[in-house]
Amino acid sequence: MASKLSTQPYRGTRDFLPDEMSVRTQVFSQLYEVIESYGFARYDGPILEPIEIYEAKSGQELVNEQLYRLTDRGGRELALRPEMTPSVARMIAAHADTMAFPVRWYCHVNCHRYERPQRGRVREHWQINVDTFGTESLEAEVEIFEMIHRLFHAVGASTQDYVLRVSDRNLVQNALASFADVPDELMKGVFAIIDRWEKYPLNVQQEALAKLGLSDTQIERIGQLVTLDFTGYLQIASKETLAHSNLARIITEELIDVPILFDPLIIRGFEYYTSTVFEVFDTSPDNRRSIFGGGRYDNLVALFSNRRIPGIGFGMGDVTLFDFLSTHGLLPQPNNSADVCIMPLHPGVRTTMKQVADELRAQGIRTVTPLEEHTLSKEIKDAARRGIRLAVILGEEELARQHVIVRDLTRSEQVEVPLSELVGTLKKKLSDPTG
Amino acid sequence: MASKLSTQPYRGTRDFLPDEMSVRTQVFSQLYEVIESYGFARYDGPILEPIEIYEAKSGQELVNEQLYRLTDRGGRELALRPEMTPSVARMIAAHADTMAFPVRWYCHVNCHRYERPQRGRVREHWQINVDTFGTESLEAEVEIFEMIHRLFHAVGASTQDYVLRVSDRNLVQNALASFADVPDELMKGVFAIIDRWEKYPLNVQQEALAKLGLSDTQIERIGQLVTLDFTGYLQIASKETLAHSNLARIITEELIDVPILFDPLIIRGFEYYTSTVFEVFDTSPDNRRSIFGGGRYDNLVALFSNRRIPGIGFGMGDVTLFDFLSTHGLLPQPNNSADVCIMPLHPGVRTTMKQVADELRAQGIRTVTPLEEHTLSKEIKDAARRGIRLAVILGEEELARQHVIVRDLTRSEQVEVPLSELVGTLKKKLSDPTG
Repeated sequence: MASKLSTQPYRGTRDFLPDEMSVRTQVFSQLYEVIESYGFARYDGPILEPIEIYEAKSGQELVNEQLYRLTDRGGRELALRPEMTPSVARMIAAHADTMAFPVRWYCHVNCHRYERPQRGRVREHWQINVDTFGTESLEAEVEIFEMIHRLFHAVGASTQDYVLRVSDRNLVQNALASFADVPDELMKGVFAIIDRWEKYPLNVQQEALAKLGLSDTQIERIGQLVTLDFTGYLQIASKETLAHSNLARIITEELIDVPILFDPLIIRGFEYYTSTVFEVFDTSPDNRRSIFGGGRYDNLVALFSNRRIPGIGFGMGDVTLFDFLSTHGLLPQPNNSADVCIMPLHPGVRTTMKQVADELRAQGIRTVTPLEEHTLSKEIKDAARRGIRLAVILGEEELARQHVIVRDLTRSEQVEVPLSELVGTLKKKLSDPTG
Repeated sequence: MASKLSTQPYRGTRDFLPDEMSVRTQVFSQLYEVIESYGFARYDGPILEPIEIYEAKSGQELVNEQLYRLTDRGGRELALRPEMTPSVARMIAAHADTMAFPVRWYCHVNCHRYERPQRGRVREHWQINVDTFGTESLEAEVEIFEMIHRLFHAVGASTQDYVLRVSDRNLVQNALASFADVPDELMKGVFAIIDRWEKYPLNVQQEALAKLGLSDTQIERIGQLVTLDFTGYLQIASKETLAHSNLARIITEELIDVPILFDPLIIRGFEYYTSTVFEVFDTSPDNRRSIFGGGRYDNLVALFSNRRIPGIGFGMGDVTLFDFLSTHGLLPQPNNSADVCIMPLHPGVRTTMKQVADELRAQGIRTVTPLEEHTLSKEIKDAARRGIRLAVILGEEELARQHVIVRDLTRSEQVEVPLSELVGTLKKKLSDPTG
């Protein structure tokens, strides 16, 4: 006997069987609906991209350690996209001349990163990206923040289940410079440490800051800044910085009526973010995790175009989202079974069976017919095992009277109905959630 | 000024901008609906797969010349999937023990092949795969053939626009052996030549057959076989071969009421097909092309499992499908614009604007609000340019009376309506396709 190939998917990737796929499809449809209700239009793009589009602004860890790279037969160096923002910036730059800005776009794509698989981390994940291009207006931030709340509500979450933490890199950077004397050339290093602030104990962070060459006073002041609330930043920041901060204006002018929490610890890994950054966290003690985040990236399109086209958006990954939904008991039931199984009692009724099946399918009723001959009791058992709710049993005697039997496989009850009333009977039973 | 990165997608891959994406989404939704009406359930799986799953049965050209290969940091040799059937066979094998066969599955995935881009050929294409596992019954063939017709009708095609050409490799192989004396070891080579029969003139094919070592008599007889109709095969084939051919039984016993055309030229490239093969062709003189095809592969799951699990299915690629739809004028209009744009005449109505927007969105009306302040005339011009059909204009005077103005941007007409009647008015106008 020849040895068999492994049936497992490649490590860090996932097979989505129909039950799981159905749950995912239901959740994603709800999210698409909210996103489209805000006038965002869906786009898509290739998985393979030139390496260069990540090298400039996606961050060193991602480019050096996490990219899936390959070289094609023509010698082109490619990557499986690790994230979508550089691709969409490329597409916007390509078509900017024919667009009416601002544009609102979204997509749902898979991205690859070479990571050690663990809870919340896989190598291939799916991500909904939502982006607004072509405006520096704070209304873009307000719209995105509001939509995030609507998205959570659409999948059944309450405002208590998550918290939207927001910051402005400029505001924090100015405070680091003016209050903690952090020189420009160390800013990137300090940001990287603040980005992981909650992951390690204070003394580890202090040592890391000292290693950058910062003094005890500077380190102490950084420690104050990372826990400072918005009022504190208002006192430190210059008028000019505040006037240019969309986030500061949104908070001080009370321009938003959904909850946001100012938190200087929010930095985000991508280097392309320029000012506003945000991240949504699960509030459950079982899953105190970042679910997803985003920010404003006003210079990313500049990699591809001389036109200045600011952008703001977020990428919502499936793994952390479904961990959140599962933690809060918000996953819907699978809904991928056929609705009706037709069961002919005799080969002679095959033509009638096909006509009935055609009619039910045309009415949007998911209908299966038997591919093999089995006894009625095996057909019923199999159909119930597949989660099919109703059987239409075709007997010669009933058909002679233009009747069929409709059997409820959940309740094991059956009724005889005229063929002319079959569609109505089935639709009524299917729309009754109690079975 | 730094030099800019290219805005073009990688050669042979495509960016789908919102207009095109909307057309695609509409077409695919219609196809999903038909497939699901037959009780097929959607699944999905990873893009990266171990190379081995293609090496055994996908064909040498594909494996040696067309695979996008990469090696991960752990030394695993991977491919970007060039087709889905080996992946789904792997998944079925992995979960066979908990399944009630037959199972009906479908997916919609992207696949990569390194090819020279040309009309109908790209390097990344999207493909709907439909497969039935776990039955050798001819009813599986009948169902797939019927569904193919329904799929074409669902997207607006008539039976005259395409032809479903079908064959049985066993029937043809037996005829090649008995009528043309082709020895077993040359069968694969002869099949490869028949597969490309229509692409080259007769003398080229005859030379290719001679190169395999076949005699003039054999070559002449092969020439007869490739143009022989089904009645001819009925005369050549043994009773046993006919009894074991699902296709021969479907035709002779008249078990199908949609048109199929027996054609021994249909071979299909994949080596895993075992008997029934089929391919749909465009009948238009402008596009006499294969649109897609499939077949029965009763031994593919055996790569992964000791259980015998027959399979039959097809993969419908997007490029040839959309060429077909475009040739026949069947592409729908894009439908990705927002429905309504709200235009506040004064910053003071911002709160009302947000409430109105929220209400419209909750009612499923795609609604945009301005991110920047512009004059009303610029707002109207921009909205019309984006294909938005209706504007809701919020003036202080009208709002004082709890009224708003609804402007039809297509007709440049407007009416004043009470706020309480706004949703109804908009829904009525949006449901009227004449504008």
